[in-house]
Amino acid sequence: MIQFEIEARNNNSRAGVLHTPDGSIHTPVFMPVGTLATVKGMTTEEIKELGAEIILGNTYHLHLRPGDSVIRKMGGLQKFMNWDRPILTDSGGFQIFSLAKLLNLNEEGVIIRSHIDGSKIKLTPEISIAIQQNLGSTIMMCLDECLELPASRQEVERSAGLTAKWARRSKEASLNESDVFKEQALFGIIQGGHELDLREQSMHQIVEIGFDGYAVGGLSVGEAKEEMYNVAHHITPKMPAEKPRYLMGVGDPADLLEGIEAGIDMFDCVMPTRNARNGMLFTSHGKISIKQSRFRQDPEPLDAECECPTCKNYSRAYLQHLYKSGEILGVRLNTYHNLFFFISLVKQARKAIIEKRYLKFKKEFLKKFNSQ
Amino acid sequence: MIQFEIEARNNNSRAGVLHTPDGSIHTPVFMPVGTLATVKGMTTEEIKELGAEIILGNTYHLHLRPGDSVIRKMGGLQKFMNWDRPILTDSGGFQIFSLAKLLNLNEEGVIIRSHIDGSKIKLTPEISIAIQQNLGSTIMMCLDECLELPASRQEVERSAGLTAKWARRSKEASLNESDVFKEQALFGIIQGGHELDLREQSMHQIVEIGFDGYAVGGLSVGEAKEEMYNVAHHITPKMPAEKPRYLMGVGDPADLLEGIEAGIDMFDCVMPTRNARNGMLFTSHGKISIKQSRFRQDPEPLDAECECPTCKNYSRAYLQHLYKSGEILGVRLNTYHNLFFFISLVKQARKAIIEKRYLKFKKEFLKKFNSQ
Repeated sequence: MIQFEIEARNNNSRAGVLHTPDGSIHTPVFMPVGTLATVKGMTTEEIKELGAEIILGNTYHLHLRPGDSVIRKMGGLQKFMNWDRPILTDSGGFQIFSLAKLLNLNEEGVIIRSHIDGSKIKLTPEISIAIQQNLGSTIMMCLDECLELPASRQEVERSAGLTAKWARRSKEASLNESDVFKEQALFGIIQGGHELDLREQSMHQIVEIGFDGYAVGGLSVGEAKEEMYNVAHHITPKMPAEKPRYLMGVGDPADLLEGIEAGIDMFDCVMPTRNARNGMLFTSHGKISIKQSRFRQDPEPLDAECECPTCKNYSRAYLQHLYKSGEILGVRLNTYHNLFFFISLVKQARKAIIEKRYLKFKKEFLKKFNSQ
Repeated sequence: MIQFEIEARNNNSRAGVLHTPDGSIHTPVFMPVGTLATVKGMTTEEIKELGAEIILGNTYHLHLRPGDSVIRKMGGLQKFMNWDRPILTDSGGFQIFSLAKLLNLNEEGVIIRSHIDGSKIKLTPEISIAIQQNLGSTIMMCLDECLELPASRQEVERSAGLTAKWARRSKEASLNESDVFKEQALFGIIQGGHELDLREQSMHQIVEIGFDGYAVGGLSVGEAKEEMYNVAHHITPKMPAEKPRYLMGVGDPADLLEGIEAGIDMFDCVMPTRNARNGMLFTSHGKISIKQSRFRQDPEPLDAECECPTCKNYSRAYLQHLYKSGEILGVRLNTYHNLFFFISLVKQARKAIIEKRYLKFKKEFLKKFNSQ
């Protein structure tokens, strides 16, 4: 089973190592998103070269395509996609409440309509665990309700309560070893919207059940940054100190640094990969859009301070040309660069924590990043 | 300037080395097509890893996007795309007569409508050379008329005559060194349709002008294979023995082997890259379409005898999943495999020529390739 070891602390920030049967993960860690058994545009060799120690797979997407039973027959998600390091799978919860059409939600679970072929799909805590067991991920997540905000206090409380009930059923389902082909960890998810006392209440409910790690869900869904930061700073230090803490679906560079300051250990976000495909690139001096005409004949690298192959080998003019021509290589070079940026940022943060200068590091990084 | 050295002969087949200022090329050689300053889906590091010693760039496409003047300002096509080995640029002739809309053709040149934005573009032998000089390719091609076949004998003769006049003007333009930033070789193109005497006549006209190499153009444009093979076998052995011979836009594995038998040294074709994007993959036992439902749960590699990373690391089930999900990684893995197949085939052919067993090699390869 997984074991979490904290190497260094700097105020609320932590630098740790999460030992798993599939390999060790140095935290804080950024997990690239590999929705459909591929981090879009990248090979797993490249993901390793980038220094990623864990990636995320999407249960809902993989259940639809190619189907988790196919993946199990092919030896599990890791073998299927040729990735021999840890994988975390989400529960499908987020997609249920965003991408798919929700037909029915009750205590038992949900009925949704597939965004691919319109077929009806039932998802319950037990089914989500069964799918994740077929995928054979290193870390599974409990199914949770991702409530659309703003919502009434009463609604937030009801929803967090349902999430807690589902969490208990998820844990029970995970303990049934009849159909399991590997040992898998399970994380619980704390909900509770933006109300700090409801967040605490949700945390107590989830922690009481007992999981291998705890996630903060339902943030970075359109609320003001201050609101997200407020919740993160309030709840994170109260979460069990000896377990990994995961802030789901977050975020941009400033969000990552804020989360690390609050004591978060794990992050995932589609931002570096999705933005790369749209030509939005992260540099040490801020974001740039490679489409802009000022780059048409610009022989300089994207970021002169970046050590990635995109910046070492190609000009902004070339990246713009590839983007404008719709060339796949453009997606590749952009994705590589953005992931390199995110992974390097978190690695630098880790180093700063160990060297007890995290807040200084954060301040200097953001000053430069926001200087443009 | 370039120098061609023949290492071994086996009947009409030749194994040679083409020395260029940008590096040496072992022939017979297959040139991957890098239309828009990128071999679609691949990095230049991968193209090197595949063993490619020369790639092709498309003058017409690069003139439109990003513009050859931009490329020149960025230090030439090689620097722009981070490829430090030889590049051959075509003349734009083929695209003029296929992709673009031809508005006017006369002795001077052509006026065409861009397939991108509908703008009018003038192309003459001199303009084609000027563009290719901006691109700074290792080997330039003369502008030729690619006649639509079938055509009357009279029309074929007129067209080949025009191609010869354009070839002379191309050579003259290439000798004007006022605006040149590197030494570039120039190949002439033999036209003449499927009439053997007109092919010979065209060849004499082109050879008389004198080029660094000679290409056979206007084949593999929809005619029966026997007709193409007939022309190739007739004209190739008559072409100057001491110069490289290039069969343009050809072809599938059988075509390559037939061309090599006839004495061709250089090939280019979009087939491995374009087919890869459509899920058509080449294996030692023939072509397969990865879309077929029989591969849905197939844990076997694409081609168990293939040494490429796609075949070493991934199953047919995974390749089908990527294809069906429209994932970029599918294009990458398929393209890598198909290029590996074509490049390996031509390398094996070269070895067989040196070992004086070319015809036996060809027969055995095709027997297996056609065995499915």
